[in-house]
Amino acid sequence: MSQVPHPEFAQITEDALTRMEDAPQARLQAVLAIIIRHLHDAIREARVTEFEWEEGIRFLTRTGQTCDTHRQEFILLSDVLGVSMLVDALNHTGADGISESTVFGPFYAGKQPTIALGSSILKRPEEADALSIHGRVRASDGTPISGALVEVWQTAPNGLYDVQDEDQPAGHLRGSFETDGNGTYAFQTVVPVSYAIPNDGPVGELLKALGRHPNRPAHVHFMITAPGYRRLVTHLFIDGDPYLKSDAVFGVKSSLIVTPQPTGSGCLSIGYDFILSAEDPVAGLHGSQ
Amino acid sequence: MSQVPHPEFAQITEDALTRMEDAPQARLQAVLAIIIRHLHDAIREARVTEFEWEEGIRFLTRTGQTCDTHRQEFILLSDVLGVSMLVDALNHTGADGISESTVFGPFYAGKQPTIALGSSILKRPEEADALSIHGRVRASDGTPISGALVEVWQTAPNGLYDVQDEDQPAGHLRGSFETDGNGTYAFQTVVPVSYAIPNDGPVGELLKALGRHPNRPAHVHFMITAPGYRRLVTHLFIDGDPYLKSDAVFGVKSSLIVTPQPTGSGCLSIGYDFILSAEDPVAGLHGSQ
Repeated sequence: MSQVPHPEFAQITEDALTRMEDAPQARLQAVLAIIIRHLHDAIREARVTEFEWEEGIRFLTRTGQTCDTHRQEFILLSDVLGVSMLVDALNHTGADGISESTVFGPFYAGKQPTIALGSSILKRPEEADALSIHGRVRASDGTPISGALVEVWQTAPNGLYDVQDEDQPAGHLRGSFETDGNGTYAFQTVVPVSYAIPNDGPVGELLKALGRHPNRPAHVHFMITAPGYRRLVTHLFIDGDPYLKSDAVFGVKSSLIVTPQPTGSGCLSIGYDFILSAEDPVAGLHGSQ
Repeated sequence: MSQVPHPEFAQITEDALTRMEDAPQARLQAVLAIIIRHLHDAIREARVTEFEWEEGIRFLTRTGQTCDTHRQEFILLSDVLGVSMLVDALNHTGADGISESTVFGPFYAGKQPTIALGSSILKRPEEADALSIHGRVRASDGTPISGALVEVWQTAPNGLYDVQDEDQPAGHLRGSFETDGNGTYAFQTVVPVSYAIPNDGPVGELLKALGRHPNRPAHVHFMITAPGYRRLVTHLFIDGDPYLKSDAVFGVKSSLIVTPQPTGSGCLSIGYDFILSAEDPVAGLHGSQ
């Protein structure tokens, strides 16, 4: 049952695979078999020492222990290793014209109370340029999607999300909206800034040891949900940001880079339409929460 | 720099590898590159869905959070996936005659006070057959190794280690000894029992979902340390145990299976000599704590 040719100590891998031949869940068994083969192959190829194995155990343990209700260090690890973007790519090979998705990230804080279209998501004033973001949520044939739930979140100008910063009111720079009969969404915020992902934990230490910077280019998170359509998790990035080419989590796609435009009122404005994919019934079961 | 041929979304893997090209630690970079390639390949091959990725994140997070000063769920996970035994095999390809090693396991509780040769490791009486274990620690040329530190640990007859069971006195069924001038070690204990690894956490749930039992065949743990020799981490298993062929952590090697012999005094006895490998200076730096 193993596809391993004849690697060193193949019997150990074979035993681990054979032991789960009676697994009641075929999909779990299939995924675990692939993980075990690749994990064993990686350990063989790297000739991992016992000390390195111990370091790996300690790293994973600390990564789990760094997680709490407001921090998800394993998502961060997945993000910085390019795993999150690969999973995203495999699951969103949609037709042309569908809006591109990107990493969910570790800072979603649950559904916020729905507020009126055009409202501000600030819960305190910020010294930063005001920004209006608006557009329509549509199907690939152009039909407006009314009643779509548009959830947005971003950091404050200090580079921290509300859940990372006890000085910010809860829900600051987060909002939920429902599109109107024309599929329109609209809200007021401030121009986002580039920021460092949390780098005082195991993932930050790893990045430092790898000579990598922890910065993400400025962006606003979007999650858009509508019955009959695939959930869209994405960002809008601000053009000109110095980290667009080296996002610590590999999340940038060119179709998601936008340039705020000055308006008559002295405010900046971004217009962006999101095009949702019709729901694949199978993906609907397995591909979304 | 990647050895990936042309997989789907190869650019994501390429980006993750390229991003750490300036890593100051060459070994870390090399190991991480191997891990990233295999991890990405496993995700492609399994076509992991977003929901499965979320489940994986939750599983790893809970595994870390299940760890505390007395429990190491990530070592347990490594053990049940055959990873620990593979690392063991890669690091102990020693010459013939060297005693075989096996998994360290998650239940070592630190160095215990050294007690006199021949002492009992019981800190309370147990209703179980008394067992004497003794032998010599030697080099591969037969030379006795005096002053070797022999550390042993095992479960009580209820299948629990002291650190899992608040009814047991701390240090119950654990002991540290120093070999005498003849390399002799000896201690009194009770016959070990087969037991289930902790199965009330994420690893137990995984085993259950895979249709695997959580049991280990009866064994006594040994860790033997002596200056100039490689540390030996191993077990002695009791012949006839029903789980010798299906150890949940794949730890059994035939050279480590022993049969207790009746003695004149009505006690059971195991005689076993441990042969240590001379220290490899490189392994000494990287291969032991």
